[in-house]
Amino acid sequence: MENFSEWFHNIIETADIIDPRYPIKGMGVWLPYGFQIRKNFFKIVTDLMDKEHDETSFPLLIPEEELAKEGLHVKGFEDEVYWVTKGGQKDLNEKLALRPTSETAIYPMFSLWIRSHIDLPIKIYQKGSTFRYETKHTRPMIRVREITSFVESHTAHSSPEEAEEQVQTGIEIYKQIFDSLAVPYLISKRPEWDKFPGADYTMAFDTVFPDGKTLQIGTVHNLGQTFAKTFDITFENKEGQHEYVYQTCYGISDRVIASAIAIHGDEKGLVLPPAIAPVQVVIVPILFKKGAEEVLDKCNEIKDALSKDNIRVKIDDRDIRPGKKFFSIENKGIPLRIELGPRDLKANKIVVVRRDNGEKSELTIDDNLVSSIKDLLNDIHDDLYKKAWDKFNKSLKLVEDEKDIKESIKEGNITEFYWCGDTECGKEIGKISDEDFLGSSEDLDEDTDKVCVHCGKKAKHIASVAKTY
Amino acid sequence: MENFSEWFHNIIETADIIDPRYPIKGMGVWLPYGFQIRKNFFKIVTDLMDKEHDETSFPLLIPEEELAKEGLHVKGFEDEVYWVTKGGQKDLNEKLALRPTSETAIYPMFSLWIRSHIDLPIKIYQKGSTFRYETKHTRPMIRVREITSFVESHTAHSSPEEAEEQVQTGIEIYKQIFDSLAVPYLISKRPEWDKFPGADYTMAFDTVFPDGKTLQIGTVHNLGQTFAKTFDITFENKEGQHEYVYQTCYGISDRVIASAIAIHGDEKGLVLPPAIAPVQVVIVPILFKKGAEEVLDKCNEIKDALSKDNIRVKIDDRDIRPGKKFFSIENKGIPLRIELGPRDLKANKIVVVRRDNGEKSELTIDDNLVSSIKDLLNDIHDDLYKKAWDKFNKSLKLVEDEKDIKESIKEGNITEFYWCGDTECGKEIGKISDEDFLGSSEDLDEDTDKVCVHCGKKAKHIASVAKTY
Repeated sequence: MENFSEWFHNIIETADIIDPRYPIKGMGVWLPYGFQIRKNFFKIVTDLMDKEHDETSFPLLIPEEELAKEGLHVKGFEDEVYWVTKGGQKDLNEKLALRPTSETAIYPMFSLWIRSHIDLPIKIYQKGSTFRYETKHTRPMIRVREITSFVESHTAHSSPEEAEEQVQTGIEIYKQIFDSLAVPYLISKRPEWDKFPGADYTMAFDTVFPDGKTLQIGTVHNLGQTFAKTFDITFENKEGQHEYVYQTCYGISDRVIASAIAIHGDEKGLVLPPAIAPVQVVIVPILFKKGAEEVLDKCNEIKDALSKDNIRVKIDDRDIRPGKKFFSIENKGIPLRIELGPRDLKANKIVVVRRDNGEKSELTIDDNLVSSIKDLLNDIHDDLYKKAWDKFNKSLKLVEDEKDIKESIKEGNITEFYWCGDTECGKEIGKISDEDFLGSSEDLDEDTDKVCVHCGKKAKHIASVAKTY
Repeated sequence: MENFSEWFHNIIETADIIDPRYPIKGMGVWLPYGFQIRKNFFKIVTDLMDKEHDETSFPLLIPEEELAKEGLHVKGFEDEVYWVTKGGQKDLNEKLALRPTSETAIYPMFSLWIRSHIDLPIKIYQKGSTFRYETKHTRPMIRVREITSFVESHTAHSSPEEAEEQVQTGIEIYKQIFDSLAVPYLISKRPEWDKFPGADYTMAFDTVFPDGKTLQIGTVHNLGQTFAKTFDITFENKEGQHEYVYQTCYGISDRVIASAIAIHGDEKGLVLPPAIAPVQVVIVPILFKKGAEEVLDKCNEIKDALSKDNIRVKIDDRDIRPGKKFFSIENKGIPLRIELGPRDLKANKIVVVRRDNGEKSELTIDDNLVSSIKDLLNDIHDDLYKKAWDKFNKSLKLVEDEKDIKESIKEGNITEFYWCGDTECGKEIGKISDEDFLGSSEDLDEDTDKVCVHCGKKAKHIASVAKTY
């Protein structure tokens, strides 16, 4: 994959994922195959979310007055908000924002819903589109103007400790999501100057793309009481006193799907983790005039057995050259290909080919077939996971001297270093390397002998910089 | 239900369906319970859709140039389109419409995708929000500015016959959806002056609300080649000639959910058809100090057995007065309530109460319990269906004299009459009755002796007028 950018654009079109030719920059069409990948992704996310939250749906438009209420927040978004100013032929009395994120849509309602400590905690989420008027170069799923698969959670609590715990819960849920897709990540506390506008602090997940750039794929924010004060969200505590609630919010998006595609894919096309593959197993009947019916019958039998066990399976009996057929099956990243011809049938076996490493094996057609196939799908997941994390870990490089940072980034590393935690030092290090400061990923013991790469004072964190999307 | 409008507004708030207090007129928040109803509705719709169509997702914004291309179409929508005119602080070069419907978003892509007859038919659908700048009085789910549950299908074919067949397929799918929710309907061919802007003709489903007003709950359009010509969607046919495709589109929305709520509900609150009920069976343990554990164990055992058979069931062990508990269970429209106390346990039976008619019965706790509960849920569906259709059929009244139309409408009927089919006559009849002309629901034989109620010439159709939402 010499030119990742070209590869990525190519694959999302040829594999029927997104058509970027829609006549608005940064907005694309989810094609049928891509839509199924996205649907499987949503299923993973909502199954995890539903254990902790209630799903809801808030309007897509936000009145200017609400969006503008939280000063820090609106400042962070004012350059990227799309505004609706006309209804029919008329000018609206008040501008309406296409939500860039939904704090200011949701929290005025929290203020109506929450009265007492017995109303707390509230934990909700919603999925849908959010909008950013991106001025930078756009790329399908990675940097877009309509984020179509945004899943955002919002919680309110009666104590700062509970909000803090919720941040950890959010992080744990996101880990599970990324793990399902075998997408590796580094968790950093974003520096003060790069946290979510209005948050007390922001925890962020970054992954690495094949071109060495990192992509932020999820964030979890502790909002403290900032929004509660702005939107007057109070509750009567057990002592009968009125208090502002403590809030968190967290979100993930299309970018997780983009990451799974980018990280696992190869020159032949997609390599989909079984968890999101629309088709996990494709059965290719090898047909000759003689015995075609028997072969097809057996294919159907195997298909039914796999379906029954909730494996997504289909038979590919398209009347095209085998070469062309295998090419398209590989391009679409179907994890397992089964081949079955008259000779196999006679020997009561099938040939199984793994998409991820090309390994061929034979399986006997017996009562263990379904569980053997399941094992293979699990192996594929585990191997993708291991391979992706191995590569990711190799891209992390700790340097002890400030002057080595630049070179390390050039080599495509997420470059870690010791940091005192001061904003000034942090910004200077960011400038030297001319790249983004991801934040601190590890706190050091008080009695550490490590020193900040910039100022030489005692270090408090391991932090990192990287080329970012 | 004396004042339906008040009842409806009340129930959607008290039953936790939609909070209409969002600070934009005509846009509400789907609350957790309402969201689950909507999710079950979507499941019914997408399961049916997926058999015939591929799910996709198109951008929510449409460039002005595309929206304006089809003259008739834009004329029909220009007074109701929300326009995005600003991105950040800047004016956009081109206005972007919040889609009022997606023909003009989808068909430019069809034009890129379709080259040859082998690319046809294309059958896709998407679900999501569409927007209408409604100037009339808004009501949650019924008349809204953000239609949050719009499911729209778009198809392209190589012959007019195939498009015609697709219209029938669309109608059949919609019948199944409405039948699942026990919502009765009249199918009419909308008159020329009220068809979808740009369509050859429009078939519409109307239902009747308890206040006697009809609500359009689904439409199926044969678009002919109008949009194909506008958006240059051509294909090379088998003879090697270039031809415009033949198209259909059809859509349903939130209104189907509103109809199920309105039609089946009673003074006690919601009566949900089992198909969309978030909880189909609630188990209420009747607990005394003695034997509480055994009762709870048995409740859990029954719950697990029902869950295993895909029945949505929960135990209501809230520590509140039984009266309050039953009140809220009824208000939320849960189809079946199971009560189990120590005496029942001793007698190895449960008490089952139907929400729709209040009937109580006893069931023995044995291997047949799950199938008996399933039967009861099916009975509830069937009885809701029968009751709703009986009432609906009673509201259809055929009058043979034009001067009786007004009175019949006043009585709350969908008023049917013989019609020659001429636009002028149709519009006059509409004016006399001062109500909406739904269209023709039945074509008459050529040798009929029936005559048009207005002009006295030979009638061609049975048509109807009604008070409408």
